[in-house]
Amino acid sequence: MKRLINDGYDVVEEMLEGYCLAHSSYVELKQNCDRVVVSKHISTEPRVRIIIGGGSGHEPAFLGYVGKDFADAAAVGNVNTSPSPEYCYEAVKAVDCGKGCLFVYGNYAGDVMNFDMGAELAAEEGIRVETVTVTDDIYSSQNVTDRRGVAGDVFVFKIAASAAAKGYDLDKVKSLAEKANANTYSMGVALSSSTLPVTGEVIFDMQDGDMEVGMGIHGEPGIERTKLAKADIVVSQLVDHLLQESKLQAGDEVQLLINGLGGLALMDQYICYRKTHKLLEQKGIKIYQPLVGNYVTSMDMVGMSISMIKLDDELKGLLSHPCDTPYFKIAY
Amino acid sequence: MKRLINDGYDVVEEMLEGYCLAHSSYVELKQNCDRVVVSKHISTEPRVRIIIGGGSGHEPAFLGYVGKDFADAAAVGNVNTSPSPEYCYEAVKAVDCGKGCLFVYGNYAGDVMNFDMGAELAAEEGIRVETVTVTDDIYSSQNVTDRRGVAGDVFVFKIAASAAAKGYDLDKVKSLAEKANANTYSMGVALSSSTLPVTGEVIFDMQDGDMEVGMGIHGEPGIERTKLAKADIVVSQLVDHLLQESKLQAGDEVQLLINGLGGLALMDQYICYRKTHKLLEQKGIKIYQPLVGNYVTSMDMVGMSISMIKLDDELKGLLSHPCDTPYFKIAY
Repeated sequence: MKRLINDGYDVVEEMLEGYCLAHSSYVELKQNCDRVVVSKHISTEPRVRIIIGGGSGHEPAFLGYVGKDFADAAAVGNVNTSPSPEYCYEAVKAVDCGKGCLFVYGNYAGDVMNFDMGAELAAEEGIRVETVTVTDDIYSSQNVTDRRGVAGDVFVFKIAASAAAKGYDLDKVKSLAEKANANTYSMGVALSSSTLPVTGEVIFDMQDGDMEVGMGIHGEPGIERTKLAKADIVVSQLVDHLLQESKLQAGDEVQLLINGLGGLALMDQYICYRKTHKLLEQKGIKIYQPLVGNYVTSMDMVGMSISMIKLDDELKGLLSHPCDTPYFKIAY
Repeated sequence: MKRLINDGYDVVEEMLEGYCLAHSSYVELKQNCDRVVVSKHISTEPRVRIIIGGGSGHEPAFLGYVGKDFADAAAVGNVNTSPSPEYCYEAVKAVDCGKGCLFVYGNYAGDVMNFDMGAELAAEEGIRVETVTVTDDIYSSQNVTDRRGVAGDVFVFKIAASAAAKGYDLDKVKSLAEKANANTYSMGVALSSSTLPVTGEVIFDMQDGDMEVGMGIHGEPGIERTKLAKADIVVSQLVDHLLQESKLQAGDEVQLLINGLGGLALMDQYICYRKTHKLLEQKGIKIYQPLVGNYVTSMDMVGMSISMIKLDDELKGLLSHPCDTPYFKIAY
């Protein structure tokens, strides 16, 4: 095992404690519920509140996107495990001001069940909670609504949060988040599994020199296990799938995210960005404010994903709205 | 090999091309010298210019710290190799405005030789260049001036750049960078080697479950190779060495950096931050705006280092001066 932890059962509590100590000007844990990270910069104006979350092990997602004019709270589950309904409900209680809340999270069965139960608990107290699940992982299902959420989460979170920051009502915030999700496409490649803290073991074996295109962030199977290819070839394969699925055309504009899964050198991420940029440029697709780095990880997994969101002026405006969190800053 | 690259000999050029495409609003490569990254936000006021640099493979160092009110340029060498004297000289030519330049970089023999030759070339044209080498790696030598520079680079870069941004003259900028360096202490631990792009091989073998405390960012030997211990024990060992060396006392204040070396999960970095914070708190040492993340890496090396800089009001003011680069942002 190449992890620097204490007891594998304590990783989430210890990480949360460390995170809130390190970023105490941004966030704190909810009193009486230490699995809800709450912004210290919640707008004093009454607004729709944005709540994100999911299992741990994807840091800086999700807690890293809680802050000023971005997510108001995150519900935090165990490693690769959904937050409990209670945590989802407590997140609502921590931030709602009467304008309602939007849950935004990646589409996994456990998350859907628990966030939905959290929303029901809130509804019993008269708090309206709506939900948008992110379904950007194009390889995970033929059926779009069954797809998983991966790094494209970040685009959908950002657009929902910017819509809330502009003071839009819950229906409009939800519909903009849905529009963002409908225009977001991701696909990744893994060169290794992540290491589970409790067992110290990998989730699946992968020989050195192998890769799997289309693999999910919890190690869900991809298209096929093949020999590791050169970066430009891997990127071309991912971009081909993404262009086919998204039907992007010359003249279209996208925001791009080259997302490191945790263990991939930043050098390699920029080498992948280079090829992605060139391929889109060749197709006449414009690139708006690209992002490169570890945005949604799988702990120490070596790999990366490419996400793109097709833009119009409305989405562009929302993506560039100022915000300030430990892991996402757009200048005011 | 678990790297996503093309030809190992092309990694630096391809990374630089990708980086400048991704961050084209911040930086560009110097015309006629594609190993110098130049800020697009160089102050129109005549000021001392800050030039950083070193070998590649430490991303986001050094190019990630070029931008507005931080470094004006970076000279970029091959992987783990100093930039040539020509690159160091070209960096000066790209940014000098008559107020002189300060070279700030980690103390390695090759870097010292080449940056010094670059400074001589500039001197022949009447441009004054001074130098501060960072020597924060406390285990690398008993003799402070022989020590290597590691993640503490970031503190010294920041203070030099803030001093330049305040319009101080070259002597004062240099003396503040020297003061920052004299108060900066770092020590790290490695759980794996990085993988060299050209050979696809590790620099040194390390068994799974081993660690080496005190190892350098290019794999320079540490104190001893031992079995991997729990995070709290490793952190305690590092902090003991750092406190002994720095002679910090109750009432003192530091900025802390928990620096990931590239392949360590962010979760683990926060677990390490937690223990570091608690140990300093127990000693009565105050912590100012801590940093956690991959600031100075060794590509895919699994490991982390702890850096601390002892602060007074002058250094604190400089550390919190606004700046904006792709990898370092302090709000204006």
